[in-house]
Amino acid sequence: MGMDFECIFNPRSLAVIGASSAFGKWGQMIFSNIVAGGFRGKIFPVNPNEPKIFGVPAYRRVQDIPDAVDLAIITIPADRVPLVLEGCAEKGVKGVIVISSGFSETDATGKELEKRIVSLCLERNLLLVGPNTMGIICTSSGLFATGAPIRPRKGPVAFVSQSGNLGVQLVHWAEQQGVGVSLFVGSGNEAMISCVDYMEYLEGNPDTRIIILYLEAVRKARSFMELAKRINKTKPVIVLKGGRTEAGLAASASHTGAMGGEIAFFNAACRQAGLLNVAVPSELLDLSAGFSSLPLPKGNRVGIVTLGGGWGVVTADECNEKGLVVPSLPQKIVRTIGKYLPPFWSRGNPVDLVGTRDLEVPLVALEEMLKWDGIDSVISLGVVGRLELIRLLVQSTHEAGASMQPEALAGIESFGQEYEKKYLARLAELMEIYEKPVLAVSLGKTDEGIVRPVSGRKYAPVVYQTPEDAVNVVARMVAYKDFLDSQAT
Amino acid sequence: MGMDFECIFNPRSLAVIGASSAFGKWGQMIFSNIVAGGFRGKIFPVNPNEPKIFGVPAYRRVQDIPDAVDLAIITIPADRVPLVLEGCAEKGVKGVIVISSGFSETDATGKELEKRIVSLCLERNLLLVGPNTMGIICTSSGLFATGAPIRPRKGPVAFVSQSGNLGVQLVHWAEQQGVGVSLFVGSGNEAMISCVDYMEYLEGNPDTRIIILYLEAVRKARSFMELAKRINKTKPVIVLKGGRTEAGLAASASHTGAMGGEIAFFNAACRQAGLLNVAVPSELLDLSAGFSSLPLPKGNRVGIVTLGGGWGVVTADECNEKGLVVPSLPQKIVRTIGKYLPPFWSRGNPVDLVGTRDLEVPLVALEEMLKWDGIDSVISLGVVGRLELIRLLVQSTHEAGASMQPEALAGIESFGQEYEKKYLARLAELMEIYEKPVLAVSLGKTDEGIVRPVSGRKYAPVVYQTPEDAVNVVARMVAYKDFLDSQAT
Repeated sequence: MGMDFECIFNPRSLAVIGASSAFGKWGQMIFSNIVAGGFRGKIFPVNPNEPKIFGVPAYRRVQDIPDAVDLAIITIPADRVPLVLEGCAEKGVKGVIVISSGFSETDATGKELEKRIVSLCLERNLLLVGPNTMGIICTSSGLFATGAPIRPRKGPVAFVSQSGNLGVQLVHWAEQQGVGVSLFVGSGNEAMISCVDYMEYLEGNPDTRIIILYLEAVRKARSFMELAKRINKTKPVIVLKGGRTEAGLAASASHTGAMGGEIAFFNAACRQAGLLNVAVPSELLDLSAGFSSLPLPKGNRVGIVTLGGGWGVVTADECNEKGLVVPSLPQKIVRTIGKYLPPFWSRGNPVDLVGTRDLEVPLVALEEMLKWDGIDSVISLGVVGRLELIRLLVQSTHEAGASMQPEALAGIESFGQEYEKKYLARLAELMEIYEKPVLAVSLGKTDEGIVRPVSGRKYAPVVYQTPEDAVNVVARMVAYKDFLDSQAT
Repeated sequence: MGMDFECIFNPRSLAVIGASSAFGKWGQMIFSNIVAGGFRGKIFPVNPNEPKIFGVPAYRRVQDIPDAVDLAIITIPADRVPLVLEGCAEKGVKGVIVISSGFSETDATGKELEKRIVSLCLERNLLLVGPNTMGIICTSSGLFATGAPIRPRKGPVAFVSQSGNLGVQLVHWAEQQGVGVSLFVGSGNEAMISCVDYMEYLEGNPDTRIIILYLEAVRKARSFMELAKRINKTKPVIVLKGGRTEAGLAASASHTGAMGGEIAFFNAACRQAGLLNVAVPSELLDLSAGFSSLPLPKGNRVGIVTLGGGWGVVTADECNEKGLVVPSLPQKIVRTIGKYLPPFWSRGNPVDLVGTRDLEVPLVALEEMLKWDGIDSVISLGVVGRLELIRLLVQSTHEAGASMQPEALAGIESFGQEYEKKYLARLAELMEIYEKPVLAVSLGKTDEGIVRPVSGRKYAPVVYQTPEDAVNVVARMVAYKDFLDSQAT
């Protein structure tokens, strides 16, 4: 189709029709979020009843705006949308995002209204996102046009979601976890622009390297799958299909008004296209972190470095259960690592560092494994996250009435922080040298996110909270590599 | 066997042999943690080289302590442990916890040394925890005797772990997530006291209602399973077996020096005994939160209340995939809930509140479902956790240069906080009235833990971060209820 999405994602100016200063209204939230997000172009609020919105002069109608307007974001009630769209066309607006609900997701009248606005937009050359969408985000143009106040950092992951609520929450997670985002679209009712169209755009979008989809109903299933398979060869396509079960399908039908596709067909098509088909939203997030930050493993052989034996066991079990191999180490590597450890260490993979205090050992073990061509990726458990325990220990020691000076205790903590920083920087360096992924596992909660970018580095260290999350990401990356290899031969 | 564990968990006084003021040493960490944890009895540091540890007079030998000593916690090197045990026996100590490593987990010499200390303890009537243990916790006596500074709140969950590191991390999670703990034991090498013995103690321990086990090698497998099955009828036994796969088993053997049991046998025995057999440590934590805080569901029919359609779909899918039913609602309930919602709401289960702002509606929908005898538990998505988004929206509105007063914005946030508090209090009340579990899902990160106790209430609300976690807990609780029913008939 070749729709020109520039007016949606990179408008030079935009109008928020229905902008409001009433806290909690859609027109307030989206207007404030766009302004606070630092959009680079001009922003014009439109509201016939408020002369100013938070100090910004508002216009009665979009036609009254003296400058050119590329994009209109519309939050007014559904029945008034057609008139406003006429105004947009008259004004020379190119794209419209209709946030308003009350269209085909409701009843026959809503369906009629939706048909009417689609005809109108086609006639008048308006590109229409939605209606009934939660909005869009484009980090490269600084456009954060969603009801929820989310501002993920710039990066290579694009999110397209048929559920606005779920999509926004996903991008909010991405923000919290440091996952870099290029674009987000809540596709809403897809009255004019469908997932297939967004996918076509993303295929050519230079800012996007990974595509995350939440789908409930794929209308042009065949074109979608053909396109997805083609894109997947250069940009991993990770998809969650809602409505896989009777209960999910029933919920989905009530939600979007569209019939879900048959899931067996969908799954088979995904397998054939090599798409990464996941079960739950948190997996979309974990995979977006891994695929956007790590080199792809060349095979399924995993090295494990752990500060505690039990965690090594649990991780090795998870690896085997996900089809990953945990190879034995050659004697040479055992000897090298052994120089740094007490005589009765595990002498194998997992490398159990038996709680060593020597801060160099985890990195030595890691590099020995990465050097070896018998291993394709390494999972490192418990170095990051130790800081939290050191912090608690300092506090506990202090509470116990230690005669240690507070400065000495604070010094221990800042030493811990410095070490963690150095450790992560070294992970980024090692990944670049050996072109193999290293996944850290923090075990405990940490204040920071999964992705921990290191300035100037090609890859960013990732820190998952549990071994199962890290193992799952490795397994999925290996599956994707297998797909790529099958395409090459 | 009927070992008397009082000297271990409820000693009137204890000695830390090897107590030290050198930050980061085992003898420093464990001593500081016991003192900071507020242990109710007397604490005597023993160290021949330091006259005082953090201001507390230290004794050269345990025999030099003027008071009676019930428990000795030993952190000195392995080869000196036998001599110190002799001293303990002479002093009339009843129980010893040997933290020190260097026993059967190392080599033949270590094995010999371990045999020697076991004989010595048997001869001299000393109850021996470990050696090579991370320590113990007993919340009722305020005894927090682990190397890591963790202090979970008091509650009904006991943890027994054959991996100290993993066990301690689990209890640390429990602390962070608000799960109430009765006891923790790192069983170490189990030279004298095995898991079976701890289980026997826990069976009769009035503070314990739920038992969590991390096992690698079960030595007396038959007695263990018989006992576990008996206990499981009154106290749910939740178990993670490390070493289920070739890789895990190899890691486990290197770790504890014990051969893992055959996993097929283990799984079959668990099924037969109705034990809750889980795959990853985070599941142990989720289940400990659910089982300790919620009434048991009477069946597998789940009601879902959601603030966004997509999340309802995902949750319904997860329910069906875990064998749970999401029944349609009778017209009467649809009508009642419908009074509070726009005309085109989902009219079914999941109840999609379509982003309603009316703060009463989520509770109305919840109670209508709980009242109905066609539903056994309810999952409530997105009410808790909204606060985070409100907070961000307030911030964003402020950044956008709103003319709103900071006090007005702060008022909105505190209103949100109040509402969340009231909502959770009402959940606790509703669970008590209807004796059905309600699981909240926050979707986003929250500062607080999974368990949110409400003072004076029989049940505590739980808030999981993802729908899949909540659905899994319901499915496991239903499986346990099925086991109980199968035993009753």
